Amino acid sequence: MSHFADQLLESVAAKAAPVCVGLDPVLAKLPDPVRRAADSDLDAIATFSLGVVEAVAPHVPCVKIQSACYERFGEVGVAVYHRVAAMAREAGLLVIGDAKRGDIGVTAEHYAVAGLDPVDALTINSYFGRDGIEPFCKHADATGKGLFALVRTSNPGGDAIQSLQLADGRTVAQAVGALMAELGEPYVGDSGYSLLGAVVGATKPGDAAALRKIMPKQIFLVPGFGAQGGGADDVRACFNTDGRGAIITASRSVIYAFAGGDAAQWQSSVQQAAVDLCQQVGAILA
Amino acid sequence: MSHFADQLLESVAAKAAPVCVGLDPVLAKLPDPVRRAADSDLDAIATFSLGVVEAVAPHVPCVKIQSACYERFGEVGVAVYHRVAAMAREAGLLVIGDAKRGDIGVTAEHYAVAGLDPVDALTINSYFGRDGIEPFCKHADATGKGLFALVRTSNPGGDAIQSLQLADGRTVAQAVGALMAELGEPYVGDSGYSLLGAVVGATKPGDAAALRKIMPKQIFLVPGFGAQGGGADDVRACFNTDGRGAIITASRSVIYAFAGGDAAQWQSSVQQAAVDLCQQVGAILA
Repeated sequence: MSHFADQLLESVAAKAAPVCVGLDPVLAKLPDPVRRAADSDLDAIATFSLGVVEAVAPHVPCVKIQSACYERFGEVGVAVYHRVAAMAREAGLLVIGDAKRGDIGVTAEHYAVAGLDPVDALTINSYFGRDGIEPFCKHADATGKGLFALVRTSNPGGDAIQSLQLADGRTVAQAVGALMAELGEPYVGDSGYSLLGAVVGATKPGDAAALRKIMPKQIFLVPGFGAQGGGADDVRACFNTDGRGAIITASRSVIYAFAGGDAAQWQSSVQQAAVDLCQQVGAILA
Repeated sequence: MSHFADQLLESVAAKAAPVCVGLDPVLAKLPDPVRRAADSDLDAIATFSLGVVEAVAPHVPCVKIQSACYERFGEVGVAVYHRVAAMAREAGLLVIGDAKRGDIGVTAEHYAVAGLDPVDALTINSYFGRDGIEPFCKHADATGKGLFALVRTSNPGGDAIQSLQLADGRTVAQAVGALMAELGEPYVGDSGYSLLGAVVGATKPGDAAALRKIMPKQIFLVPGFGAQGGGADDVRACFNTDGRGAIITASRSVIYAFAGGDAAQWQSSVQQAAVDLCQQVGAILA
């Protein structure tokens, strides 16, 4: 069975693009033609999601699908989430389920099964500590899947907890990062990276550089590029010196790239934005 | 519109029982008659869940339904979760959705709608900080619902993060608690308690006592009584001196009370265990 980190890094190399498109569709922002042709709000979300997948699949190695955008519609929304994930995988994309689940013991096992089985990797919350992470790792290891644990989120309010300074001089995020490095150690693949990766927001370069040292074997899933304000320095700090180890995620700047332009051609705009994203990140790393 | 904390404390007073039954059914532990009569695994979970609700509704003010146990079955499981929640509310119970969701901005709004609308209150993860909590508070305030943010979880592994000592002498959990007290302040009801409560595990009395001082206006949702090892001292420390402010949750010790006995009479055993739970907690507080 393949190892998620190996698989992801192979796909990144094949497409020469350590990037991910975030799919978090909100009804009000969908292209007019999609909304007009849809039977329902959820139908519009589904059509748009599948259209984005189709547009970006040739260019990027993976997509991150925001579970909340579908869960909002109840069980029928969950069904659409599963359908979009399945179509993306069929299109050759690795799919990260962005569900940020977290619990302990048998409950964590339930979330691991429910969250991981329809996708290739899952975002998880780290606040429960060791026994909140291990059940996810075990299921991921048994099924060839991956995980990204929240370490440093990209929102300004995250400072209130994650940037608190500990008595030993570290920040809370650094302590969480060290725990993830330890818990991920048994699950390192041939690529040198663990199936347990980390979410590290690209909004504070100093943060990312320190976390990079603490977690050399974690792949960083990096939200916050583009719309949330992350820039070139922030992005560079997330990679190891070998140019590997991070996946830069952009969402709104890609999936709503048609805004203000020709909505009828929305898929072309999304495709072009995905190509541009790959080039921007490539230029930063060159 | 009623305020969740006021409503919960009224119901606690009416039933003279600051307790909650946790509903987290696992197939292997269900009564044989329920499993044999069911068309499917999910059907067995549904029948059992509704039977527990019926058995405990006359005795306790609220139930906590573990979302993961239903999500595990995909979208049809989510539908059963909604059905169980609706039946419990019809039976006069306040329903806490134990989903531990967490995210920021518009994603948090989606989770607030998806998570809160089918229930009376929702557990949420606090690691995102301020802008991960506020969207949930706004939706709860607008709809008369409540929240319980994770502050100190009952699992031993939680220490690795939550018990870390800060440079200012507090633990991480205490800093998180202080943030929740601040964020909950605008949402205090007539009872003197905020719609934003806190999950505080009943496994370390010293922890609970310190957190009680930091969060005088938060209702504590206290897991860990019974099966997880929490005892009388731990429970007492979670209440304010007026005898209010905490809800003691027991799950396995109530819903599997029939184990080893007469499975045909499982509902009576569950009912008796709920009555016993109320008496145990009452005796501790007397």
